[in-house]
Amino acid sequence: MDNTWLIQEPEFTPSAIGPQEAVFTIGNGNLSTRGTFEEGFSGCDDVTLVHGVFDDVPTVMTELANVPSWLPLAVYIEGEKVSLDAGEILSYERTLDMRTGVLTRSFRWRSPGNRTVDVRYERFTSLADPHVLALRCQVTPVDFSGTVEVRAALDGHVDNAGVRHWLKVKQGEQGERTVFLESRTRGTGLLLAEAAWLDVRGASAKYTLHPIENCPTIVARWTAQTGQTVTVDKVVSLYTAHDAGRKTCEAALAKLAEVQATPDAYDRLLAASSHAWAEVWDAADVIIEGDDEAQRAIRYSLFQLFIAAPQADPFVSIAAKTMSGFGYRGHVFWDTEIFILPVFTYTHPAIARNLLLYRYHTLGGARAKAREAGLDGAQYPWEAALTGEEVTPRFVPGPAGKDVRIWTGDIELHISSDIAYAVWQYWQATGDDDFMLQYGAEMILDTAVFWASRVEWEPEKNRYEISDVIGPDEYHEHVDNNVYTNYLARWHLGLAQAVLNWLRHSAPAKAAELVERLALTGARLEKWRDIIAKIYILQDPTTRLFEQFEGYFQRRDVDLAAMEPRSRSVQALLGIEETNETQVLKQPDVLMLFYLLPDEFDAQTMRVNWDYYTPRTDLTHGSSLAPGIQAILACRMGDADMAYPFFMQAALIDLHDLRLNTRDGIHGAAAGAAWQAVVLGFGGLRVTENSLTTQARLPKHWKRLAFKVWHKGELKSFSFEGIGNI
Amino acid sequence: MDNTWLIQEPEFTPSAIGPQEAVFTIGNGNLSTRGTFEEGFSGCDDVTLVHGVFDDVPTVMTELANVPSWLPLAVYIEGEKVSLDAGEILSYERTLDMRTGVLTRSFRWRSPGNRTVDVRYERFTSLADPHVLALRCQVTPVDFSGTVEVRAALDGHVDNAGVRHWLKVKQGEQGERTVFLESRTRGTGLLLAEAAWLDVRGASAKYTLHPIENCPTIVARWTAQTGQTVTVDKVVSLYTAHDAGRKTCEAALAKLAEVQATPDAYDRLLAASSHAWAEVWDAADVIIEGDDEAQRAIRYSLFQLFIAAPQADPFVSIAAKTMSGFGYRGHVFWDTEIFILPVFTYTHPAIARNLLLYRYHTLGGARAKAREAGLDGAQYPWEAALTGEEVTPRFVPGPAGKDVRIWTGDIELHISSDIAYAVWQYWQATGDDDFMLQYGAEMILDTAVFWASRVEWEPEKNRYEISDVIGPDEYHEHVDNNVYTNYLARWHLGLAQAVLNWLRHSAPAKAAELVERLALTGARLEKWRDIIAKIYILQDPTTRLFEQFEGYFQRRDVDLAAMEPRSRSVQALLGIEETNETQVLKQPDVLMLFYLLPDEFDAQTMRVNWDYYTPRTDLTHGSSLAPGIQAILACRMGDADMAYPFFMQAALIDLHDLRLNTRDGIHGAAAGAAWQAVVLGFGGLRVTENSLTTQARLPKHWKRLAFKVWHKGELKSFSFEGIGNI
Repeated sequence: MDNTWLIQEPEFTPSAIGPQEAVFTIGNGNLSTRGTFEEGFSGCDDVTLVHGVFDDVPTVMTELANVPSWLPLAVYIEGEKVSLDAGEILSYERTLDMRTGVLTRSFRWRSPGNRTVDVRYERFTSLADPHVLALRCQVTPVDFSGTVEVRAALDGHVDNAGVRHWLKVKQGEQGERTVFLESRTRGTGLLLAEAAWLDVRGASAKYTLHPIENCPTIVARWTAQTGQTVTVDKVVSLYTAHDAGRKTCEAALAKLAEVQATPDAYDRLLAASSHAWAEVWDAADVIIEGDDEAQRAIRYSLFQLFIAAPQADPFVSIAAKTMSGFGYRGHVFWDTEIFILPVFTYTHPAIARNLLLYRYHTLGGARAKAREAGLDGAQYPWEAALTGEEVTPRFVPGPAGKDVRIWTGDIELHISSDIAYAVWQYWQATGDDDFMLQYGAEMILDTAVFWASRVEWEPEKNRYEISDVIGPDEYHEHVDNNVYTNYLARWHLGLAQAVLNWLRHSAPAKAAELVERLALTGARLEKWRDIIAKIYILQDPTTRLFEQFEGYFQRRDVDLAAMEPRSRSVQALLGIEETNETQVLKQPDVLMLFYLLPDEFDAQTMRVNWDYYTPRTDLTHGSSLAPGIQAILACRMGDADMAYPFFMQAALIDLHDLRLNTRDGIHGAAAGAAWQAVVLGFGGLRVTENSLTTQARLPKHWKRLAFKVWHKGELKSFSFEGIGNI
Repeated sequence: MDNTWLIQEPEFTPSAIGPQEAVFTIGNGNLSTRGTFEEGFSGCDDVTLVHGVFDDVPTVMTELANVPSWLPLAVYIEGEKVSLDAGEILSYERTLDMRTGVLTRSFRWRSPGNRTVDVRYERFTSLADPHVLALRCQVTPVDFSGTVEVRAALDGHVDNAGVRHWLKVKQGEQGERTVFLESRTRGTGLLLAEAAWLDVRGASAKYTLHPIENCPTIVARWTAQTGQTVTVDKVVSLYTAHDAGRKTCEAALAKLAEVQATPDAYDRLLAASSHAWAEVWDAADVIIEGDDEAQRAIRYSLFQLFIAAPQADPFVSIAAKTMSGFGYRGHVFWDTEIFILPVFTYTHPAIARNLLLYRYHTLGGARAKAREAGLDGAQYPWEAALTGEEVTPRFVPGPAGKDVRIWTGDIELHISSDIAYAVWQYWQATGDDDFMLQYGAEMILDTAVFWASRVEWEPEKNRYEISDVIGPDEYHEHVDNNVYTNYLARWHLGLAQAVLNWLRHSAPAKAAELVERLALTGARLEKWRDIIAKIYILQDPTTRLFEQFEGYFQRRDVDLAAMEPRSRSVQALLGIEETNETQVLKQPDVLMLFYLLPDEFDAQTMRVNWDYYTPRTDLTHGSSLAPGIQAILACRMGDADMAYPFFMQAALIDLHDLRLNTRDGIHGAAAGAAWQAVVLGFGGLRVTENSLTTQARLPKHWKRLAFKVWHKGELKSFSFEGIGNI
């Protein structure tokens, strides 16, 4: 088998268990489950996160609540629990097959009582049915015969790093080998039900049900013979109130009944899920020949994004750490629209549409945020969750027990334009006029209304300014006239004008509706024109060098190269306030602009700014968003080999735990940026209103690059031979 | 027409508008709408509350969120808005027809511009379909011809006394005269959608849709002729995420499409709803001949309880103020199980079952409460909402701007036994063994586990005590060995023993399950026996007088009669701390025990305690729960005429605004107690395990009393002739 489809762990390393749990996350667009062991391991917690299942929590406002665990399935041989905590591991292998989304783990283990057993676990979350989860356990006694027992449970005793989110509503059983558990979040009162069914094959098993409080358990027991393999299948259904209102329990039991109604349930479910995965890969796969590590890494990036992507739900979005860990609490940032969305816009536009609809459906929160700041229109929150209200924590625990004030929720404004940009980009690529008409235009226009109320008119300077913001580069807080923010706000107002004009021609009734509802008065539109003409953009007309914000060039210049080697960010080394006084960047705002709006800047401008800002950016330990974008820009400057290490920094960030925080969840934006580096960078894909072009520049050792993209309803295939092929 | 079916308001009194809005609340068991005017009136807010639609709110934790208003329908004659704020009211009448649940309002009005118009509004919430609301407006120009316009909206700009709970998700239109509005609560993220359809008959109307932000509006305009009546029907559908998960908007639009698919939509909907009401009244109506005021009041009590009673939803219950006002925020108290539940147990057992299932489904909250107090089992919260966690506010604003600490959530423990009692009473009356087996037993047993962990063993006194509680009489806080609490805890432990024994015989598997899951060990059951034998009950064996709590007789005795006349409670007059030091009672705990457990006390005991406690109880301005119970006890003592004024205090509490707080919502417990006073008091209904008996004692002027009750699956009719009939 082609091992570029596999993520393999050839031996068990307890010290790496945290990041590896994140790496081996599987999911189906509705929920994700981390790579925790089915039988448990000391200090490890099962984590399954489900889209939209948020609950209140102190300090960080709201978080995805770790749901009752569907995983537990432990094997007992002659009364001894098979667990890697004890005994002796004679062989071990864990593999994620990205082609099918199946995670397997096999080991030979000798018990403290000196019995040897082969165990193989396999699990998947069905991509064909968002409510179906399944796991299989195969047990083969190597050197004994005797009683084998499996205990399979639904466990309501779960928490998010100590915070308990669930109250049991009820538990119970149906028939001889089905149990269910219904729970509800403590704060938001959201119902969730799971039902589990157990099926043993290859032995005559006796089933018993154990009503353990908040942990209903199915036990199966049989007499095992040396060398004989018995297969245990556990199928679980899961429904939330988002799916089934009050009737989650009924829905979960009905689904299990449907599953049991035909033979070979597990195999059929797996076949259906694998088929769905094949369809995803058919459009989304990227082929890199000549570089297996890159090939595997790009597939892994796609895999992690697809398992996190809402297939059918337009009320949720992809969080910064997807659903693979507790980092950032399931909150949604600009990461989604700028770094991740293009992957779906080009490989699966229906998902991209859902992701944008999430922002449409949370306009209420954006309007509330603007209103509370005394502003007009819609201001998207820096961090968003279920309702779209701002959920950035105001303080987080910092070093030495001191709370650190987080300002991003107050003043990192650019996200409203990032979302407008994403709507426009989606529209360009798909030609989905219906979306623009029904939803996109309102998002672009009402965020434009926000900008016009936010900018500050400075009459003595005859210009508009935007003071006291944070740009993408979060090392610098409370800055004035951040180039990224001001430039994109200007572009955004121009886009709003264009969209309104388009709407007036193509859908006058909708245009009239929005003009009335959003109060797009003549005075307002006149002010947009005025802002576009007079907003302050800091650029030296001679050198073409942009200044990231007012006074940036006066900050202290630090020789980053001289700080190497280091394993922590510049901010962690120097401190927040000290870093703020330097020119060191977490990510380069000006270069981000070039990435977003390539047509607006010439090659010389690009080069001058690249040369200034790249060496001043903390690319290894600053923002994980930056390297992939650097790779794209390097390609656009014609240097694929300069791009390559940047690309690999993005692509391997979690597989190699490059930031030492993969334990908290995989880096969704880096995964998206890695894909963009390949397709927009090495492949040189460019889409404008009426055209799609490519300009491949492959790293020297690549033999071939191939991918497909959807463009205006058509799936186009591209294949480029590299120099390495010669 | 028999006007004992009607609640009539013969003239418009602006100063009474608040309480009258509560009085004219209509509903359908899913939602209620207060009697606010469809066209608005200055200072009045539309209020519609829906079961289970809770949102976070400071201080009081959670409250039923006033949902976007479905009411707005204003008439404009030649550009003048028809509103009772302006112009001249020439005639006016408002009527609630309790037989059909239809609220009508007719008036003749002269505009400031000197045009006279007859307007008749009519509205109902369908009892046949919990998602359908309808209103009709009939407009007849009296002395002019000209343009008439109606503006019908769904208005998202609503609040709970200033607290805004909703974020708009989206709004829109379908076809020529349908609009919709989808919203979401800010804290709990609960979706809710409404759709409205307008239909004008009797004129050729032109419809236009106005996309007012967060208030989509349908406008119909026609040219009206003097004397010609035009009818405008507005039909609204409403769904929450509890009903439809993510698909509330789809569900609301589908329902409206179904409504429009056949002609005469409004009339058909009204006929279906009236038919459903006829079925309710067929079982529930109480006939009182010879006393029209009592007849009307008892029907009103039943009407208000039925509109608040969940017909199909086992996850919600009836709040203290039903859904007719913001008082107590939609929280559920013991009022439901002790005062309201018997009404349904005897007239509509399926609703009683739903109400008890709510307590079953919130056992998770009760267990969390016990756990957090370091106790075992399940401790029901004093105030409950969606999840069953304690939601009693810890502080409320008091006089002179000082916050008052509320202790009930911490130490008013008796509610756990009240709920166990209600389960037992329901079981006795219905013989619903399935309910007891599946749900009731677990509630009774796990609350018994709570008690056994809560009582305090005093070895030197060789007895169990319960210190630091509040009994039903909330004028006394932090008391020890409250008779009501201790006596009922003992009774409760005895009930738990009996139920477990019953279960062991009739359903051994279920008994075994509960013994395992609730850890009902031998030691635990032994402790129950010990507590029953040794819990401290304060009673003088000679006089048979109970002492409400330890040291009560040493408190200052106050001559309540000497304080008359007064219009405020004793607590309001003397202050919280001062009242605590007296013997004045908010309600008489000892007498409550006699009401609940009549077989446990003889007539002399009853008389001695009645004579002591009744004159010391603030019956006019203390607890609104007490008078109805006093009426029952007076009847049991054979004195129906002494009972009658107590009964009328309960029955007229809201129709006459006796407590001056009907504005905050009607008194659900008083309504239940009024019904109990009639059926259990004047009718003398008694149900024990194997028997149902009645012993009528009618007030002198009553000619006849008739009612029906369900008993073990059979609907039994009773009719008693009174002395007044002779």
